Amino acid sequence: MFERITIIGFGLIGSSLARAIKQNNLCKTLVCADPSEEVGITVKVHMLADEVTTDLAEGVKDSDLVIISTPVGAMRDVAKTIASGLKDGAIVTDVGSVKTQVALALQQELPDHVHVVPGHPIAGTENSGPENGFAELFRDRWCILTPLSDTDIRAVEKVTAFWEACGSQIEIMDPEHHDLVLGITSHLPHLIAYTIVGTATDLEDDIRGEVIKFSASGFRDFTRIAASDPTMWRDVFLNNKDAVLEVLQRFTEDLTGLQKAIRKGDGEYLYRTFSETRAIRRAIVDAGQATYVYPTQKQEGAPPAPAPKKAAGSQE
Amino acid sequence: MFERITIIGFGLIGSSLARAIKQNNLCKTLVCADPSEEVGITVKVHMLADEVTTDLAEGVKDSDLVIISTPVGAMRDVAKTIASGLKDGAIVTDVGSVKTQVALALQQELPDHVHVVPGHPIAGTENSGPENGFAELFRDRWCILTPLSDTDIRAVEKVTAFWEACGSQIEIMDPEHHDLVLGITSHLPHLIAYTIVGTATDLEDDIRGEVIKFSASGFRDFTRIAASDPTMWRDVFLNNKDAVLEVLQRFTEDLTGLQKAIRKGDGEYLYRTFSETRAIRRAIVDAGQATYVYPTQKQEGAPPAPAPKKAAGSQE
Repeated sequence: MFERITIIGFGLIGSSLARAIKQNNLCKTLVCADPSEEVGITVKVHMLADEVTTDLAEGVKDSDLVIISTPVGAMRDVAKTIASGLKDGAIVTDVGSVKTQVALALQQELPDHVHVVPGHPIAGTENSGPENGFAELFRDRWCILTPLSDTDIRAVEKVTAFWEACGSQIEIMDPEHHDLVLGITSHLPHLIAYTIVGTATDLEDDIRGEVIKFSASGFRDFTRIAASDPTMWRDVFLNNKDAVLEVLQRFTEDLTGLQKAIRKGDGEYLYRTFSETRAIRRAIVDAGQATYVYPTQKQEGAPPAPAPKKAAGSQE
Repeated sequence: MFERITIIGFGLIGSSLARAIKQNNLCKTLVCADPSEEVGITVKVHMLADEVTTDLAEGVKDSDLVIISTPVGAMRDVAKTIASGLKDGAIVTDVGSVKTQVALALQQELPDHVHVVPGHPIAGTENSGPENGFAELFRDRWCILTPLSDTDIRAVEKVTAFWEACGSQIEIMDPEHHDLVLGITSHLPHLIAYTIVGTATDLEDDIRGEVIKFSASGFRDFTRIAASDPTMWRDVFLNNKDAVLEVLQRFTEDLTGLQKAIRKGDGEYLYRTFSETRAIRRAIVDAGQATYVYPTQKQEGAPPAPAPKKAAGSQE
């Protein structure tokens, strides 16, 4: 599909992409460009790329496709660094969770003779680093592309074909619209999860121990989300400030409404609110984004692991 | 273990207990006492009990163990209704997610000649109703008992042995302490999940459609939690008001701190907060309450289902 692909940043997403590229034979030569020598060693050990360099400008030379998969906050600097090394007609894309700020940075820093097609694969796990990547990460997931209106359509088609070869489905969107939709589906949930787990961390020692011991389904799900990469998420919130603050404002108003209902003992309000939310779950299950698992099977998200007598006792 | 057990309320928990009792031969005769005739029919169809009645007072006659597994808000009335029917020395327990108010209600409404041992199995799924129960629901889960200081120790031992036979581990606790710990691990996460899914429900139609379509990992987990039984959760919040409002206050303060950091662009504060929360996840994994799944296997909580081209398209 491509002669030469360079991936900049070999974290969970970059290394998963490398594995998917190799598995599906999407290029002749795959280059890993990552400033960390440690990451370079991991890439060599696992044979994730054909060439490895810590010099980003050197790494993008002669590449047809350059994929920036660093944290969002580093992307402008990366673009600056590679600008002079890019060949004529090269396609540059990224995998950032924020699109408006990133699209702007790439557009401003990269030369006119390259094609910029910002992208965001909606895939990931709470485990970061190249050793945690896997080729199937993007299979049956959405990838949103946010090209500008004047972006060469053939470049968009090539990036689309690339992601489809990795198993993803493509959706084209305005960057601003992307940031609002992801603000509510991804950024706000992460912020809330970080908050609630942080609140638990601040508890008095004896209560905190029991919070860990008796972490019921709800809290356990939140801790998984709140174990996500801190650098990546810091950058998301710094770069999607407006959309996040807007949805946070709506969330806070709704939470205040429930708080008031609890304080006043307004059972009717609580019941109505809790009933309405069931419908949206149903819609998500119907859209194929979540599975309804029948009770005889393992429950999705149900307590996954036994609490071994010994480990549990050691918390006491 | 017992001659005769009566379960009052055959929802997810009650019907799962019935299945566990049958599977482990924990009594000679199992009685289902549920005011709903419809539930009675389901119980008969699935042969979940030996006797079925809609008359609660009648249903508890001659039983050695009575398990109240209705929503928390109905427990005082249930206790009033069965008080005259209970035999001398009968043990009455419950499965409510709130303990202070329930223990008080049972103590006030039940006669002195019965033993009250309030309990709370930390187990459940988002699916309610008798058809969704299964015998293994309590296996390797905690069950917290909150007996009073003057409760007959032999009654506590019998209830302990009962839950252990269902596969659970027992912890004894003060009801007030239980309500604070569960307030943070379970009640607050549910309140937050209900709120955030409610916020999404209120969005403009076009955005809501895309929220459903692109529901990323974070939001999807929240919708699962927010699909839980509305009656049960209304009663939890009405009956654990003080503890919930206290932890909610702490949560709101922490959220305001993060909101301020986002507004000011304080990346250091965000990074520090997000790093600290990773440690508590580690502690929970170590305590055996969650599994770290290695990347080559299916990720815990990772996107579980493909988005089939057709179903996804129908959302557009």
